[in-house]
Amino acid sequence: MDFRLEDIDDAEVERRLSIVEPLTDAVRELVDAVIRTEVDDAELVAAREQIEAIVARLRAQQKDKGYGVSFTRDFTGMPWGNAATGARNAVAPPLRIKKVDGVTRADVVLGAAYEGPGGHVHGGIAALLLDQLVGETAAADHMPSFTGTLTVRYLRPTPLGPVTLEGRVTGTDGRKTFVHGELSDADGVTVEAEAIMIQPKHFPARDAIISTIAKLENERS
Amino acid sequence: MDFRLEDIDDAEVERRLSIVEPLTDAVRELVDAVIRTEVDDAELVAAREQIEAIVARLRAQQKDKGYGVSFTRDFTGMPWGNAATGARNAVAPPLRIKKVDGVTRADVVLGAAYEGPGGHVHGGIAALLLDQLVGETAAADHMPSFTGTLTVRYLRPTPLGPVTLEGRVTGTDGRKTFVHGELSDADGVTVEAEAIMIQPKHFPARDAIISTIAKLENERS
Repeated sequence: MDFRLEDIDDAEVERRLSIVEPLTDAVRELVDAVIRTEVDDAELVAAREQIEAIVARLRAQQKDKGYGVSFTRDFTGMPWGNAATGARNAVAPPLRIKKVDGVTRADVVLGAAYEGPGGHVHGGIAALLLDQLVGETAAADHMPSFTGTLTVRYLRPTPLGPVTLEGRVTGTDGRKTFVHGELSDADGVTVEAEAIMIQPKHFPARDAIISTIAKLENERS
Repeated sequence: MDFRLEDIDDAEVERRLSIVEPLTDAVRELVDAVIRTEVDDAELVAAREQIEAIVARLRAQQKDKGYGVSFTRDFTGMPWGNAATGARNAVAPPLRIKKVDGVTRADVVLGAAYEGPGGHVHGGIAALLLDQLVGETAAADHMPSFTGTLTVRYLRPTPLGPVTLEGRVTGTDGRKTFVHGELSDADGVTVEAEAIMIQPKHFPARDAIISTIAKLENERS
């Protein structure tokens, strides 16, 4: 898996985010506008041509594949291509999960791009956000936890608009962690999830980053 | 739910698609390019400004909320804002599901925008695609089926790239339909899903469309 060390400090992380986050937000607005626009066909064709020109300029220099996941030497993760949370990924709403006393929470507004049944959140988008939530709920000590089984129960349709997610660990068994997650609108829980998360026995990417950090520290001392 | 009749013929559906599909494809390319680009910050800022200008033009006239789901009078669905399949939604890969003898199948290439673990498909994206698949597998007679419970088992990580989905009904019990779905890469199944789908007792949106069609036919005869 593509996990790598990027040896930059927090200020540089913030500086890069200050450039890419507004860009990605603009693309999110574009995704939304293309769904909702009612301008005439000539305007749509003109928009397409302009977008294609921007794409060509951005592709002048680019990574071969996906963004991957990079870490600073103090293990600040930069999963900026992540489909649920990525700062560079306009597919992501993006979800911003905070963990306090082991409980994860996120508030997010789901607009036109996340529609399934007319006016409502796509059930699969609820599953996407809950999968990310249970992953971050189970993760600990810079060690990821991968979803083994995710069971999602849809209690009622979730209207497009603001939603809240909340997750907590309900038990552990060896390398397994059991997590409960919920998605709610203003009137209460609409979707709930139970997950069996699995911590990998070995995670070579993490080991590689740790040994690279040790080497860097060595060179500097 | 926002389901509505749009009284246009197949040729007009195709004509509209011929405009919006290339536009949405261009936005998909843009989403991908913003994730992968390595051009300098000045170029990123310039791209953002240009995108914001396009958004402003598209928003000159637009729907209030999500796209909703419209149908022609012969029940051709136009769920063009759908997060998994939508012809106007750049979040959607898009998934194009075909049903032959009750078995649903789709081939789709998942690029950088669908990443979770570095180089691999986000587990929640697999869940999104499988949720759409089981929904279309259970749907019949222009009657939708909503997901009650979706259980997703991750057998191994799915590399970014081409994948195949396949779904089939495994049983029914009153308004419940049981569906099995699979997501595979070239080496076999990577994710499998079991779903309990529920057909609504009443679906007022469908009834409303049917009565509108009847009224239209009446007026013309």
